Amino acid sequence: MLHLKEISDLVGGELRGDGEKEIHGVNSLRRAGPGEIAFVAPEMENRLPPGLVAGALIVRYGSAIDRSDCVLVSHPQLAFARLMDHFHPRIHFGDGISPQALIDPAAVLDEGVSVGPFSYIGAGTRIGARSEIHAGVIIYGDVTIGCDCLVYSRVVIREGTIIGNEVVIQPGAVIGADGFGFARDETGRPIKIPQVGRVVIGDGCEIGANTCIDRSTMEETELGTYVKLDNLIQIGHNVRVGSASTLCALTGISGSTEIGCRVVLGGQVGVADHASIGDNAMVAAKSGVSGNVLANTVVAGYPQQELSRWRRNSVIARHLDELQDRIRKLEKSIKDMEDKT
Amino acid sequence: MLHLKEISDLVGGELRGDGEKEIHGVNSLRRAGPGEIAFVAPEMENRLPPGLVAGALIVRYGSAIDRSDCVLVSHPQLAFARLMDHFHPRIHFGDGISPQALIDPAAVLDEGVSVGPFSYIGAGTRIGARSEIHAGVIIYGDVTIGCDCLVYSRVVIREGTIIGNEVVIQPGAVIGADGFGFARDETGRPIKIPQVGRVVIGDGCEIGANTCIDRSTMEETELGTYVKLDNLIQIGHNVRVGSASTLCALTGISGSTEIGCRVVLGGQVGVADHASIGDNAMVAAKSGVSGNVLANTVVAGYPQQELSRWRRNSVIARHLDELQDRIRKLEKSIKDMEDKT
Amino acid sequence: MLHLKEISDLVGGELRGDGEKEIHGVNSLRRAGPGEIAFVAPEMENRLPPGLVAGALIVRYGSAIDRSDCVLVSHPQLAFARLMDHFHPRIHFGDGISPQALIDPAAVLDEGVSVGPFSYIGAGTRIGARSEIHAGVIIYGDVTIGCDCLVYSRVVIREGTIIGNEVVIQPGAVIGADGFGFARDETGRPIKIPQVGRVVIGDGCEIGANTCIDRSTMEETELGTYVKLDNLIQIGHNVRVGSASTLCALTGISGSTEIGCRVVLGGQVGVADHASIGDNAMVAAKSGVSGNVLANTVVAGYPQQELSRWRRNSVIARHLDELQDRIRKLEKSIKDMEDKT
Repeated sequence: MLHLKEISDLVGGELRGDGEKEIHGVNSLRRAGPGEIAFVAPEMENRLPPGLVAGALIVRYGSAIDRSDCVLVSHPQLAFARLMDHFHPRIHFGDGISPQALIDPAAVLDEGVSVGPFSYIGAGTRIGARSEIHAGVIIYGDVTIGCDCLVYSRVVIREGTIIGNEVVIQPGAVIGADGFGFARDETGRPIKIPQVGRVVIGDGCEIGANTCIDRSTMEETELGTYVKLDNLIQIGHNVRVGSASTLCALTGISGSTEIGCRVVLGGQVGVADHASIGDNAMVAAKSGVSGNVLANTVVAGYPQQELSRWRRNSVIARHLDELQDRIRKLEKSIKDMEDKT
Repeated sequence: MLHLKEISDLVGGELRGDGEKEIHGVNSLRRAGPGEIAFVAPEMENRLPPGLVAGALIVRYGSAIDRSDCVLVSHPQLAFARLMDHFHPRIHFGDGISPQALIDPAAVLDEGVSVGPFSYIGAGTRIGARSEIHAGVIIYGDVTIGCDCLVYSRVVIREGTIIGNEVVIQPGAVIGADGFGFARDETGRPIKIPQVGRVVIGDGCEIGANTCIDRSTMEETELGTYVKLDNLIQIGHNVRVGSASTLCALTGISGSTEIGCRVVLGGQVGVADHASIGDNAMVAAKSGVSGNVLANTVVAGYPQQELSRWRRNSVIARHLDELQDRIRKLEKSIKDMEDKT
Repeated sequence: MLHLKEISDLVGGELRGDGEKEIHGVNSLRRAGPGEIAFVAPEMENRLPPGLVAGALIVRYGSAIDRSDCVLVSHPQLAFARLMDHFHPRIHFGDGISPQALIDPAAVLDEGVSVGPFSYIGAGTRIGARSEIHAGVIIYGDVTIGCDCLVYSRVVIREGTIIGNEVVIQPGAVIGADGFGFARDETGRPIKIPQVGRVVIGDGCEIGANTCIDRSTMEETELGTYVKLDNLIQIGHNVRVGSASTLCALTGISGSTEIGCRVVLGGQVGVADHASIGDNAMVAAKSGVSGNVLANTVVAGYPQQELSRWRRNSVIARHLDELQDRIRKLEKSIKDMEDKT
């Protein structure tokens, strides 16, 4: 439980109303009860759910909402994220090394590491303090994992991978599988190019369920710090993703592409090989990107173009039939004129 | 073995030919032998494979096929599905609890449940009668699974998930991983929004291989009854999918989207967040949907439009070079005219 | 270590410079040191990295590069692939059958097979000589796997699958899950069509991480020899892929489609059901293919068209706003003329 005043202090906001009010939890706007607090996203300010009974609200400074018992902040969602961390601290699944885990004698597990049943840790692998390895995880040899990591069930981490601190890996992700590298021989048969590089993942990254990050052919496939990958993403060999970038589900990045910092890629985006995307760029869902995307731009389409132009063009593309009719009419007018003269 | 008359009764069809004929199995049109029965899809009626020797056929009422030993029905494929169920009853892999499985003492397994080797079942989880959990499945704590479910190998089900009766989950699916929720802080760094909701799956659903269904931030991600998901699908947090809807492979549904009942989504479809798709709507493969799709409509494209219009426009889009030539010609004609006057 | 002359002989190239030079390894152009060899892709010939210190280079015959200590070949990347095989021979993870593996007494393992911990092999399954099954792999019953295969961790292979020799399966792949086959009943509810066929995979294939190949309804889903599948690919039931074809990540092939030999599909391609793609055809990334693609053609777009035409059209599509302006101007000119007369 927190008093509303404490919540206001915790998120660095401004209190309006009863600072002594007891708040027992967080919930969605729709479901929050009298003892709970919810947040109002800017786009929801004009359509608060009927029958709203939340005990308190987190709202944007300057919002027109005039209810009592509010906490005013600059970024309601961010404040709410911090508050959720308070009310829902991370669950710790682990309690030590399961007798059903198999740890190679040449692996090193630092203090407080937990390993679930049916997990395997190979020779030469080192896992940092307090990291939790859940059930059914396979970690090959010579892997380095930092402190306070959380590796969910059925993740596979191949040999030589390096992972920083406070990294979260959702179930089923595959880190360090061979890159897709083949050279065709004289008969057209694809010959495998051995993939002997590795994957390096920075502090604070999160990798989604069943997402794949391929090892590099000879150097590194690299995620900077605080990169967030959604589910079912493909990161090809030799790719570099800069810090704090976020990639949505089913997106694929082809080999040797460079993605800057704080980049946002929508879902089902494809990026060609050897492309580059500058810092702070945003790419709309389903776009197909090749070549260069400049820093601080927003692009969409396939091939990509500047978002507002893509929007204009895609409105016209949905009315091509009308455009064609206008051309037909023009042709007729011209013909009529020519016939007259 | 069934006599043809028995088959006709089983599928509620009309017998033509020898009701005493012995049928020992089902097969494809191309491969069915004299002791087997095949079905003829309407689009195949005019192109039966040469050398067809099937002992009997299931065909549509009113079909022009005039062979003997047929069973006439309204929906040949549906009749065939039911017949296959007879000749190929579901295989039961399980025989009890494997000594190599690990069941938490605080889990409850009802009568006839089987659990394969290297599977783990967490505390507080309850599994209904006769459900089969194959090898290498990881089920976290506080999960509820109904009766007669079939969970293939290497599925992961995270804590708190609720699954109905007669649900089938293909290998590698991940149910209840964290939703992709992050709020950017003042420096642009993404801060995780804890995902403390859950996934609820109705009776009779089937989840494809390596498909991911994310837990909700605070409420439920929910599949109604008889929802069928193909492989490698992404269902984001807070999504609701109505009963009897079918989604094809590599489709992604972003957060908080609502999909109605009996909806059909083709492969590689993307649906934006907070969108809604009405009952019985159909979305063509590779479409990108945002906003609302009305019930009982068929849409295609990105952004989506009504199918027939999309088809018309996409024919023109493939001939834009000709359209441009016609515009050039018009410009030249106009210029010639203006020059003359 | 190899002398440069030995390398030249190994790849069948022509030596330029000091044949006695000692080469200790391969590396990328950027990173190769004085004791290492790198290769120069044709597109890199004009932009060699500054500070290049590689001990030797593999270059194309006729290249303008005039450095000493080169090996000249027709296909530098292919020569390099072969050289990498020499310097980085395949790692053998296995040493026999892990005491933590579970092998059904009715499975047959040929000479030199290794099986990692927490792997299960079902009854009636046969695994050929020297094949390595890593940790956490689940192989159902009645599967046949050839010799010298490499099955990485957490792969699932369902019952009845047939796999040739020298096949590599990356982590998390699912072979033989049920095809997505449902017939709607009179109320619109999807009824499962039992999937009782199987998957057949030819010699020398490689299957990417978390890729899914569904079993056929009644016949075979089939990969020819030397097919290479990238990660997160969906191969639907009854599909056939011809020899030496390569498919990039996140591509989906719908049911009953036939793909020829030496076909190349880019990433995120979708192919509709019952389509066919001829030998040596290439399909650009993100294309949506239906119907037939002729052998030896290159196509792009959705629906697909010949690549050069697609390029022409997609340039125009990005300037539809200008096209519309030209039409407006024409309409105005015509109106002015008509007004005048």
